[in-house]
Amino acid sequence: MDAESFLEFASQVTKWKMYPYFDVAHSVLCALHVRDDLGPGALAFSRKHPISCWLSTMLVVFAGGMLSAALLGEPPLAPLKNTQQLVIASAVWYLVFYTPFDIGYSIAKFLPVKLVFSVMKEIYRCKKVHDGVLHAAKLYPNAYIIMILIGTLKGNGASFTKIIERLLRGVWTPTSIETLQPSFTTKACIIASVVFVLDIKSDLISAPHAFVYVFVIGFFIYFKVFSSMILGIHEPMLPFENLICAIFFGGIFDYTTKAFKSTKDEKVDTKKKD
Amino acid sequence: MDAESFLEFASQVTKWKMYPYFDVAHSVLCALHVRDDLGPGALAFSRKHPISCWLSTMLVVFAGGMLSAALLGEPPLAPLKNTQQLVIASAVWYLVFYTPFDIGYSIAKFLPVKLVFSVMKEIYRCKKVHDGVLHAAKLYPNAYIIMILIGTLKGNGASFTKIIERLLRGVWTPTSIETLQPSFTTKACIIASVVFVLDIKSDLISAPHAFVYVFVIGFFIYFKVFSSMILGIHEPMLPFENLICAIFFGGIFDYTTKAFKSTKDEKVDTKKKD
Amino acid sequence: MDAESFLEFASQVTKWKMYPYFDVAHSVLCALHVRDDLGPGALAFSRKHPISCWLSTMLVVFAGGMLSAALLGEPPLAPLKNTQQLVIASAVWYLVFYTPFDIGYSIAKFLPVKLVFSVMKEIYRCKKVHDGVLHAAKLYPNAYIIMILIGTLKGNGASFTKIIERLLRGVWTPTSIETLQPSFTTKACIIASVVFVLDIKSDLISAPHAFVYVFVIGFFIYFKVFSSMILGIHEPMLPFENLICAIFFGGIFDYTTKAFKSTKDEKVDTKKKD
Repeated sequence: MDAESFLEFASQVTKWKMYPYFDVAHSVLCALHVRDDLGPGALAFSRKHPISCWLSTMLVVFAGGMLSAALLGEPPLAPLKNTQQLVIASAVWYLVFYTPFDIGYSIAKFLPVKLVFSVMKEIYRCKKVHDGVLHAAKLYPNAYIIMILIGTLKGNGASFTKIIERLLRGVWTPTSIETLQPSFTTKACIIASVVFVLDIKSDLISAPHAFVYVFVIGFFIYFKVFSSMILGIHEPMLPFENLICAIFFGGIFDYTTKAFKSTKDEKVDTKKKD
Repeated sequence: MDAESFLEFASQVTKWKMYPYFDVAHSVLCALHVRDDLGPGALAFSRKHPISCWLSTMLVVFAGGMLSAALLGEPPLAPLKNTQQLVIASAVWYLVFYTPFDIGYSIAKFLPVKLVFSVMKEIYRCKKVHDGVLHAAKLYPNAYIIMILIGTLKGNGASFTKIIERLLRGVWTPTSIETLQPSFTTKACIIASVVFVLDIKSDLISAPHAFVYVFVIGFFIYFKVFSSMILGIHEPMLPFENLICAIFFGGIFDYTTKAFKSTKDEKVDTKKKD
Repeated sequence: MDAESFLEFASQVTKWKMYPYFDVAHSVLCALHVRDDLGPGALAFSRKHPISCWLSTMLVVFAGGMLSAALLGEPPLAPLKNTQQLVIASAVWYLVFYTPFDIGYSIAKFLPVKLVFSVMKEIYRCKKVHDGVLHAAKLYPNAYIIMILIGTLKGNGASFTKIIERLLRGVWTPTSIETLQPSFTTKACIIASVVFVLDIKSDLISAPHAFVYVFVIGFFIYFKVFSSMILGIHEPMLPFENLICAIFFGGIFDYTTKAFKSTKDEKVDTKKKD
């Protein structure tokens, strides 16, 4: 594949419509997430509390849009005005929770199906991060932090609404808040947002915009689907994080302090011995 | 009473001003709700934490407006700009909590008084649901779910803010969240919102608008005041809910699955015996 | 100092720029607050969860602006668009948590330094209360309660976001909500807001605006810095509060009720004895 035909392919990827196939994939994985989060009592819960179950699933499906709308002073309910998407999400929710013999859930859980949906979800995620960064850049042209925040929240909103989603089901787990232990998805969304911000706002990235877009999709698919689901590597960035922490957040400075103190202590010890 | 004079009466009902009598009735019942929610330590709490007590009462009184404003991207504090209503609510709060010999509370608790206030509150509730649906329909003409959500929240906001109201008093009860176990009031507000949406957005309801309005008031008063307070029936819709759950949310499908599995198990058992 | 030159000085004080020195002072005290709130495990926490630590510090620094924006229907993230302030806050956060030998923290904790920063923070606080009241008055010219609320939240937002700030670090302390036990700072901000509302909206205060502004600064500095940090009086308004509570919130009425009841009981006792 030569560069020109790849560029053409890439620029077409940036124009892909998300409705309806990608919406379905996203909704299926969100409903699966809610069901898995409910644990072994999921079916019993869905029979006893259908409204709570539906509301928390909708919150997961529309988390990114709602959260970023709330933080940008836009109507948090606005994402629900997309009736088609709402109907798809509700239908998927129904199929995952209420089909006889649990067919819906079993199909969605079937690895090849889940793999395809996961790949589609990552393409969807890239578009959401990209749109989030662009939207924030339109509102606040010089506020890079807001662009990165909104891009991250759009791309991985469900992680941040997890404690609210559980609260809607009457469960309160403050220690599982995303900010305390950001998942790899959150970190990947931060990186993707930074890449898009650099692409839009600076000249550091000389590649065409469509290339960057497709590269970010590849990054998401490689780490989130290939590494995580097939190779079982869930924290591919751990070495880099440890490096950054060692350099900037305490590591070296703490060692210096400790080394200095222990030298001092030794001196004191030696003096005492004398 | 012939149809024409009833229509005239109904169209006048739709124009009733809520200020000041209905506001008083609503505030009294809200203050009673806060005081009853505080339990036997209510008086001691109101003496020790007047600010917290006042804030949580105001949150209950203005819950519907604040919650729906927040979800529609409007200023959540805007309902407080209605100074007259705020003064009424504060005066009622003072009378319910701080009068000597607890006269205010005793009068408000006196059954005939409470009945009259409850009837007035249901008329108020109908107006709020109606206004909520109309307001949402103006903002999102095709988003039926948003109309129903806003109608419900406007009509029964206090139930949904209950955990925040308690949080303002330092009490956190995540399991009492409304979405987990919707009260009858919430369900009645959902039904009323659906009726208003059908009335506004479809031709399914051929009756004049004022008829529908008065019918919804009658529905609220019958079930919320008559059934609940006099006959003691708190969940009049339980049979319907059970029916819906049995048909759509698991019931029949689960039985089919179980029946199928047990037939299979029996076959296995018979085979084993052979 | 004669009145005229004082007026000139006062009118200059009202025009002081907050950037960068006052921003630094405010950020330092906010970062100290977060570090002290984390307790003895602060350093370990900052090494393990830098993102959570940074986010909660930023929430404290921008609490007033974010909270009042959220309640007025404006974008809660908007305060972050001020890049310079964000950079200062982040730099201060880094210095307080990650310097070798904990130099940053030690300097900030050094009493004379802290005193100067505290005085600067109170001048900043006065400006924020003032701007909050003015902003609310522009939006809702007749809603005095909203002006007082916004003034208070702008001046002492960090107290009200404390439970959210802790939640970002995975700690949930509902009983430490500010509304339950308002600190002296909150009460001082309420008083300052009332003074500014009276100054703007009524003719009760005949002094020039700049005088009122400087007087409020003096009030803050006297009670928050001098009384609290040097004399150790943390609740200077307790006598007034007790007086108000005794007059309006139960005190006298409760005594009347008790006196009346005990007289009655005595009568009953006397009768029984007879």
